[in-house]
Amino acid sequence: MCVFCKIIAGEIPAYKVYEDERVLAFLDITPVHVGHTLVIPKKHVANLEAIESDDLTALILAVKKIGKKIKENLAYDGYNVLENNDPVAGQVISHIHFHLIPRKAGDGLNRWPDNKYAEGEEEDTMNKLKS
Amino acid sequence: MCVFCKIIAGEIPAYKVYEDERVLAFLDITPVHVGHTLVIPKKHVANLEAIESDDLTALILAVKKIGKKIKENLAYDGYNVLENNDPVAGQVISHIHFHLIPRKAGDGLNRWPDNKYAEGEEEDTMNKLKS
Repeated sequence: MCVFCKIIAGEIPAYKVYEDERVLAFLDITPVHVGHTLVIPKKHVANLEAIESDDLTALILAVKKIGKKIKENLAYDGYNVLENNDPVAGQVISHIHFHLIPRKAGDGLNRWPDNKYAEGEEEDTMNKLKS
Repeated sequence: MCVFCKIIAGEIPAYKVYEDERVLAFLDITPVHVGHTLVIPKKHVANLEAIESDDLTALILAVKKIGKKIKENLAYDGYNVLENNDPVAGQVISHIHFHLIPRKAGDGLNRWPDNKYAEGEEEDTMNKLKS
């Protein structure tokens, strides 16, 4: 049983902040900032390709609810919603989870490079994604 | 009209990779990696608090579909799903958008700090988020 399934089963404690029929949310134990929350489906699935639409819908609606609380109850001005899909993307636990990462002005986080497409590469990529 | 609404209206060109009744997806012009895609609702709303459930559901189901294509058609092993909610979180265009960021092994991206809660802080935070 994976660590998140153990939390769902009550075998490992967690600071739970939200629960419904399909979803559980709890505090990340190594938060980027206080209030950093993980939102998971109760049914074990590895990633976005594996999750059923009903569970995915419940998950994102829960993310929305908790995000509102992060702003209103913890007095943050915003947050990142992040799902690392597969190990190459930084997914450590193979049970899909959305991070809600509260943010503070000037914290210097969430930097990504801006690159450019080569001539013709954008059209080629679009065609591959559309096919 | 915001730049994404102009893309929806056809006033600004974009490399569109997916479209349905509620959602449009197109290539980010400054990609982290080739295939970096933005997924937006056709109805202009600023952020996750403002989007209606039907649009949010359509958005995340489209993200799932496009993520599958990024892996299968562009041969990536994974990707990040990222929504920067509000300017403090890095949101530049005030029209909600989910990034699909393809990832490559060893690219060194998506690093976040691991912090610790002080004594009692986790329970206090949980209680605030649950209230």
